Amino acid sequence: MTEEERATFRIPWPGESVAQPGDWVQLAWMHHPRPQFVRLEPGARLHTHYGIVAHDELIGKPWGTVGYTHKGEAFYLLRPSLEDVLRHTPRRTQIIFPKDIGFILLKLSIGPGVRVIEAGTGSGALTTALAFYVGETGRVYSYERREEMQALARRNLERLGLAQRVTFYLHDIAQGFFEREVDALFLDVPTPEDYVAQAREALRPGGHFGALVPTTNQVSRLLAALQAHGFGMVDVVEILLRYYKPVPERLRPTDRMVAHTGYLIFARPVMGDQPTTPPREEP
Amino acid sequence: MTEEERATFRIPWPGESVAQPGDWVQLAWMHHPRPQFVRLEPGARLHTHYGIVAHDELIGKPWGTVGYTHKGEAFYLLRPSLEDVLRHTPRRTQIIFPKDIGFILLKLSIGPGVRVIEAGTGSGALTTALAFYVGETGRVYSYERREEMQALARRNLERLGLAQRVTFYLHDIAQGFFEREVDALFLDVPTPEDYVAQAREALRPGGHFGALVPTTNQVSRLLAALQAHGFGMVDVVEILLRYYKPVPERLRPTDRMVAHTGYLIFARPVMGDQPTTPPREEP
Amino acid sequence: MTEEERATFRIPWPGESVAQPGDWVQLAWMHHPRPQFVRLEPGARLHTHYGIVAHDELIGKPWGTVGYTHKGEAFYLLRPSLEDVLRHTPRRTQIIFPKDIGFILLKLSIGPGVRVIEAGTGSGALTTALAFYVGETGRVYSYERREEMQALARRNLERLGLAQRVTFYLHDIAQGFFEREVDALFLDVPTPEDYVAQAREALRPGGHFGALVPTTNQVSRLLAALQAHGFGMVDVVEILLRYYKPVPERLRPTDRMVAHTGYLIFARPVMGDQPTTPPREEP
Amino acid sequence: MTEEERATFRIPWPGESVAQPGDWVQLAWMHHPRPQFVRLEPGARLHTHYGIVAHDELIGKPWGTVGYTHKGEAFYLLRPSLEDVLRHTPRRTQIIFPKDIGFILLKLSIGPGVRVIEAGTGSGALTTALAFYVGETGRVYSYERREEMQALARRNLERLGLAQRVTFYLHDIAQGFFEREVDALFLDVPTPEDYVAQAREALRPGGHFGALVPTTNQVSRLLAALQAHGFGMVDVVEILLRYYKPVPERLRPTDRMVAHTGYLIFARPVMGDQPTTPPREEP
Repeated sequence: MTEEERATFRIPWPGESVAQPGDWVQLAWMHHPRPQFVRLEPGARLHTHYGIVAHDELIGKPWGTVGYTHKGEAFYLLRPSLEDVLRHTPRRTQIIFPKDIGFILLKLSIGPGVRVIEAGTGSGALTTALAFYVGETGRVYSYERREEMQALARRNLERLGLAQRVTFYLHDIAQGFFEREVDALFLDVPTPEDYVAQAREALRPGGHFGALVPTTNQVSRLLAALQAHGFGMVDVVEILLRYYKPVPERLRPTDRMVAHTGYLIFARPVMGDQPTTPPREEP
Repeated sequence: MTEEERATFRIPWPGESVAQPGDWVQLAWMHHPRPQFVRLEPGARLHTHYGIVAHDELIGKPWGTVGYTHKGEAFYLLRPSLEDVLRHTPRRTQIIFPKDIGFILLKLSIGPGVRVIEAGTGSGALTTALAFYVGETGRVYSYERREEMQALARRNLERLGLAQRVTFYLHDIAQGFFEREVDALFLDVPTPEDYVAQAREALRPGGHFGALVPTTNQVSRLLAALQAHGFGMVDVVEILLRYYKPVPERLRPTDRMVAHTGYLIFARPVMGDQPTTPPREEP
Repeated sequence: MTEEERATFRIPWPGESVAQPGDWVQLAWMHHPRPQFVRLEPGARLHTHYGIVAHDELIGKPWGTVGYTHKGEAFYLLRPSLEDVLRHTPRRTQIIFPKDIGFILLKLSIGPGVRVIEAGTGSGALTTALAFYVGETGRVYSYERREEMQALARRNLERLGLAQRVTFYLHDIAQGFFEREVDALFLDVPTPEDYVAQAREALRPGGHFGALVPTTNQVSRLLAALQAHGFGMVDVVEILLRYYKPVPERLRPTDRMVAHTGYLIFARPVMGDQPTTPPREEP
Repeated sequence: MTEEERATFRIPWPGESVAQPGDWVQLAWMHHPRPQFVRLEPGARLHTHYGIVAHDELIGKPWGTVGYTHKGEAFYLLRPSLEDVLRHTPRRTQIIFPKDIGFILLKLSIGPGVRVIEAGTGSGALTTALAFYVGETGRVYSYERREEMQALARRNLERLGLAQRVTFYLHDIAQGFFEREVDALFLDVPTPEDYVAQAREALRPGGHFGALVPTTNQVSRLLAALQAHGFGMVDVVEILLRYYKPVPERLRPTDRMVAHTGYLIFARPVMGDQPTTPPREEP
């Protein structure tokens, strides 16, 4: 990470003990569920539902400090985790959830130096995670058709100091992607089956394809398109995350949970004439 | 990544189109579930249940190529995904599953430059993911008491070119960790509640604590210990992963699934006198 | 079923095609989620959020008819299913859910002629199902300590014509149950472990014991008590019910679901000195 | 229940304390998972994997007694629960699981006096539960096309003394059902969408329709057919059952579980011109 990048890249930056100007911080309320996120600026004031906080009272304070609003509401001063950042991405669309993003990263082998395409950009939650993990030497190519969505995502990435790792396109992917030989490609669009040929063209052989769709009908259509275009090693999964109430003497799941975000489909472009999907091994 | 590292670090290395000597490759059988992993060495031969393959027939071939054993069994030549590598970690203990590892990475904000402690090392699956994601500038400190387990994990990491990012300790963590001000710390030990004080000492304020335990009794004991030692922002979750049979016209989940690997507990050391856990917000 | 019973017992009474005076009916709104339940009385009027309906307009109409309120809101006239009745039991406490009740019936072998104890009565949802299924020749003995809860449950059962199958006790079960040699016994109380000895005394050898508790700590305590009092064949289960949006071309689960109602524990009193629990067979 | 019925109907018959000739009993092994089921006959001998047991040693013994084979393997002598009976139905096809059957009973309001159609008969697990719960005054009409399946189901029902409550048909339901105005109807066939018109014809208005299908594609097709044929109040659900290891001090789910049996679809024939499905209320 260059000095310049370090100046702008402010999330989960390791190694510092106190909050500094420019840091992206989280006020975790002691008695209210939804945390507040803010970038510290000397002289600024944060207005919240629970009272006002002067940024200057936070700057220089150790992480984990307990602070109070002018109304006396208590909060912890924390650097947000990547999961916090993703879960609270300012959004105008349904975002991909951290439970899904974590698994996507491993299945697509997203890591330093990786070149990855995603479409659509949406509100930029997955874009954020991809940009964070491809590092300085990798690159995210993010396609979107709706100008206002792209603007929101760009703003979200800029705020976190990650926008310089992303190429944003306003483009209809039916006309194909601009890159070739990318390591991975992820589709979060309503009709991914329409872009499988374009995805295959952009991916390197043996690369990693992924997609998320909410309905079973979309899964079926995408599976058929993947078969038709020489993809193998197909996996379809869904991930359920259940929270527990963290009370030692009365441990139990929460009353309600998210029942569904989407189905994840993974596949790899292979070279053979008749690609088949090996029988799924139980992990 | 230095040139030297590049010479040894062979998993999901982006940017190359053909298999090279030293690459860690996956033979994905077309008609059998469990893939074969091997590091390519000129002149070597791979003996499998399904026949013999000469490494020289693979070296120089594009990823995604279909190959055959001397018995005619077909396979795809692929670079394993990180998920493949983790799921098939050679093991003598239960490993942490990719579904859990992906979420751990986000909750602990593991990324380039992060310094993270884990105990115990076990077979090294989580160690692998941590080492991969902290990059060249981060560091993994991995504690283990059983010499043979440490040896296995070290071998697993060396094989993947990641061992140089890890400090392996043969040490009883009841005596404390050697590091201070680490960004994150993960416990995968039978009695994590016994090491919460030591964890708190090693973590920076506001850092990220995580643990995995298989039983509800362990969760309760750990929650009590976290409360007693000034941890806040506690989350307890379990993750269920369900695979579907990838058949477009007969889409359905597999017959059986993993019902349980463990409960994940996350918390953050805070500075206040009476740390509390904010009411859980539904995501 | 006697003529007299037939006169009062009005839920899911088979064999009649049109709504009759005294019938317990369900108005299922076409455009609103929560149905309305009412017992038909000549001359009466039903006031709902969506308008007024004269009972006389419903009496004599075939089941499944579409009706309208005076404001023009459309509804189906239906006999409620047993599941509807249970799910919408008027309540002052958390009721046991149909997903759990259905399984309880099979595990406790509730059927015609069975004598079954339950404690506590609560709002009477399980009482309703038990009374329905033990028939004229069986009997439900329902214990409760809170007078107002018992009154509510009794009202709920009377409304459905099932109260005459139930003996309601206002009694502290710590002093034991009044019956002996009952076929089945179900505990839905905060500390079931305190009443295992009493349950054993009331149950016939080899009878069916069941309990529902919300927390894992309660499960552990109850399991220990069951072991100590000579129960074997112990099963602990949880049941998750996931609804799908019934749209053929966009099939998917609902966004949210109930994550937890409780853990179900089943066991059987056995005669041996050292009762053990056989290894659980996967079904 | 008549005297004659009582003479043959031997499962979960309440009120008797000792095993009698003709009883259907369960030997629950202390150290082995799969129980043994047998009907007691004076003079007979039971040969099992774990040794031989003379029936005469069981007749007259209290339920819950510990017995031993000639090899010294210990077992409990128990009356099977209805859940045991259903789960261990001798089968040549996939049976419907108790977790699903319990919910089906409540949704279809199966109870004394109900007339219910099912197709296909299969191995007879659901038939058993239906026959048990409709009682002496109800009736099950069970359709099947495969003669050998019908023979197996009939044998299973006869063994339990329930066959006299069932009318078995060897018939292709494409030609319609023989009954009219039935209270409930359940389809467990590969293409239920082909028989929705026939089902509507057989059901009374406002009656209860149910079906189980394993794939999402079948769900979609059935939903479309239900809409086309004037069914409303449609529910689609799946039920997940998770067992826990019943160890008080190490409570945790089993390692593996059944991931899928099938999707349950419920609906009701309504009279209106444009039947719609009300928005699903969260229970």
